[in-house]
Amino acid sequence: MAAATPLLKDELDIVIPTIRNLDFLEMWRPFFQPYHLIIVQDGDPSKIIKVPEGFDYELYNRNDINRILGPKASCISFKDSACRCFGYMVSKKKYIYTIDDDCFVAKDPSGKDINALEQHIKNLLCPSTPHFFNTLYDPYRDGADFVRGYPFSMREGAPTAVSHGLWLNIPDYDAPTQLVKPHERNTRYVDAVMTIPKGTLFPMCGMNLAFDRDLIGPAMYFGLMGDGQPIGRYDDMWAGWCTKVICDHLGLGIKTGLPYIWHSKASNPFVNLKKEYNGIFWQEEIIPFFQAATLSKECTTVQQCYLELSKQVKEKLSKIDPYFTKLGDAMVTWIEAWDELNPTGDNLAKLSIADGPAKTKK
Amino acid sequence: MAAATPLLKDELDIVIPTIRNLDFLEMWRPFFQPYHLIIVQDGDPSKIIKVPEGFDYELYNRNDINRILGPKASCISFKDSACRCFGYMVSKKKYIYTIDDDCFVAKDPSGKDINALEQHIKNLLCPSTPHFFNTLYDPYRDGADFVRGYPFSMREGAPTAVSHGLWLNIPDYDAPTQLVKPHERNTRYVDAVMTIPKGTLFPMCGMNLAFDRDLIGPAMYFGLMGDGQPIGRYDDMWAGWCTKVICDHLGLGIKTGLPYIWHSKASNPFVNLKKEYNGIFWQEEIIPFFQAATLSKECTTVQQCYLELSKQVKEKLSKIDPYFTKLGDAMVTWIEAWDELNPTGDNLAKLSIADGPAKTKK
Repeated sequence: MAAATPLLKDELDIVIPTIRNLDFLEMWRPFFQPYHLIIVQDGDPSKIIKVPEGFDYELYNRNDINRILGPKASCISFKDSACRCFGYMVSKKKYIYTIDDDCFVAKDPSGKDINALEQHIKNLLCPSTPHFFNTLYDPYRDGADFVRGYPFSMREGAPTAVSHGLWLNIPDYDAPTQLVKPHERNTRYVDAVMTIPKGTLFPMCGMNLAFDRDLIGPAMYFGLMGDGQPIGRYDDMWAGWCTKVICDHLGLGIKTGLPYIWHSKASNPFVNLKKEYNGIFWQEEIIPFFQAATLSKECTTVQQCYLELSKQVKEKLSKIDPYFTKLGDAMVTWIEAWDELNPTGDNLAKLSIADGPAKTKK
Repeated sequence: MAAATPLLKDELDIVIPTIRNLDFLEMWRPFFQPYHLIIVQDGDPSKIIKVPEGFDYELYNRNDINRILGPKASCISFKDSACRCFGYMVSKKKYIYTIDDDCFVAKDPSGKDINALEQHIKNLLCPSTPHFFNTLYDPYRDGADFVRGYPFSMREGAPTAVSHGLWLNIPDYDAPTQLVKPHERNTRYVDAVMTIPKGTLFPMCGMNLAFDRDLIGPAMYFGLMGDGQPIGRYDDMWAGWCTKVICDHLGLGIKTGLPYIWHSKASNPFVNLKKEYNGIFWQEEIIPFFQAATLSKECTTVQQCYLELSKQVKEKLSKIDPYFTKLGDAMVTWIEAWDELNPTGDNLAKLSIADGPAKTKK
């Protein structure tokens, strides 16, 4: 069983996008059961998703999303795990952990089950070091510290906004690499957590990811993917590029490394190739765009940053494909929907939030 | 014993700065014996340094340095391990590995002796990835690759100029951290090699370090430290800051992580504090200087980059302390001496190189 008092029990939601029964939760029971789950059902809304007994959850299918967001539901992808970001939006908690339903509990080298969620919480609750590299990895970890030559003025670090966990067994490869190396498995347990330095982009995977909603939530939009869109499997990448640029601008940190989960099954590389091929091509221009992107000093909230970025996306990426005009508009819709569901003191009065989830079980 | 054909046997020198008999080499015999050693004797030149039987080495003491460099010997530090960079200058090989004489063979988690040199060579012979972060660490390593979302155009990587190894047991802490945590030991074996991203500075430690002389040698100047200088223990840091800025400018990569050595003995924190205190203070201004430093497009060789950096050091850091004027001048002298000892086609004719080492044993 989990520790007597699970960390952040009432401050964290676990968001799971799915199209099937959630049997995978059985293995996670000792670690997840104390927490509230937000299940985002993708695909056919008439299908019944079974959730193992004893879990506290709310579930949203496409009908719920349409009902709650109205016309703004257009910004939430359908038939793609990008739909998970709806769960980030309806959460009322400070922290989110999101995990795919083909991810299981991994073991550390001593054979012990890894409580991935606990490690993510540790990562989020201690600072990051984006402004200078520490060669002994996370300096805040037990048995480690800042090495000689690390400026003392930088040792307070920056607030950690994102914790990016990794995967044993099936690595997160693109379709071409899957095709070339169908049998490659990740067996290397690297016992490290590190901060991704300021100014450096990284490929953020949504399979095993935690973040601080208050610090960075509105940047965690997973884009327009799947049904009716010319691209898939770039949802988390898109969120990662935007998030990194905004974290750098706002002085927030992103950690990667521990914890590992056990990724059980490679998705079909032929299907993936079809989803990815535009992205593989487009990312050659998208990444230089994000590498060069700067935000004006006036942008002091995540929302302001995100709206400024949406303008730049439309201006600079629409020449690649008209898709980016649509995506830029969807980014604006996402922020409008976010603010509607997450009213602050300012806009609380104006709002009437739509109905709650279809199915809640406590 | 080492492998039948040691890697780069005739293309790598091992540089060791020392003030004592080199008994530590006994433990390294299986790995180092096939290679040539360059020993730089610090302190009293009349002292006899004993080298275990069977090693192929040349040894330079202060008298040799003065004789070989003449007035330019002023750029080589005395009574500080910074003197090791003289060994980089007199080497005629493409690769350098430098190690401190209080570093021993570490064991990997399976209990096997780590051939640190072999891992450094592997690091140097395969590319780096400074332009985009790979979450599964070195993508060129067996069992790893570039993850989904890594741009294909960047997968060739960049030539690796530096391999920065780490330390088990005594971590490389500054004096204040040593004083606060006298008993901390590094016991965490992190099974990873990674590239330090472009635009990110790091604290480079000279204890267990390898580099490609042809690619970056002239930037590996360890500065003015020790005898007659207001600072010590910043020799490798200085070299690291300069090297990183120049590698970023020239499109070269720096790797850190494996291999580990076993660092046997912490140096005296009180003595260290005396050496370091100016550096601890000054680095708060030096690091922002290097973070902001840019080199003009005209700088296409390491020497040109280094001379431009020396000008900027004098212009921008001399306000901290007159020491930086002297250091800027020494940087120029270092390059002059380097070019004298390492003539290219251009300047080969003009030169008459001074005598060889005091003592050579083959």
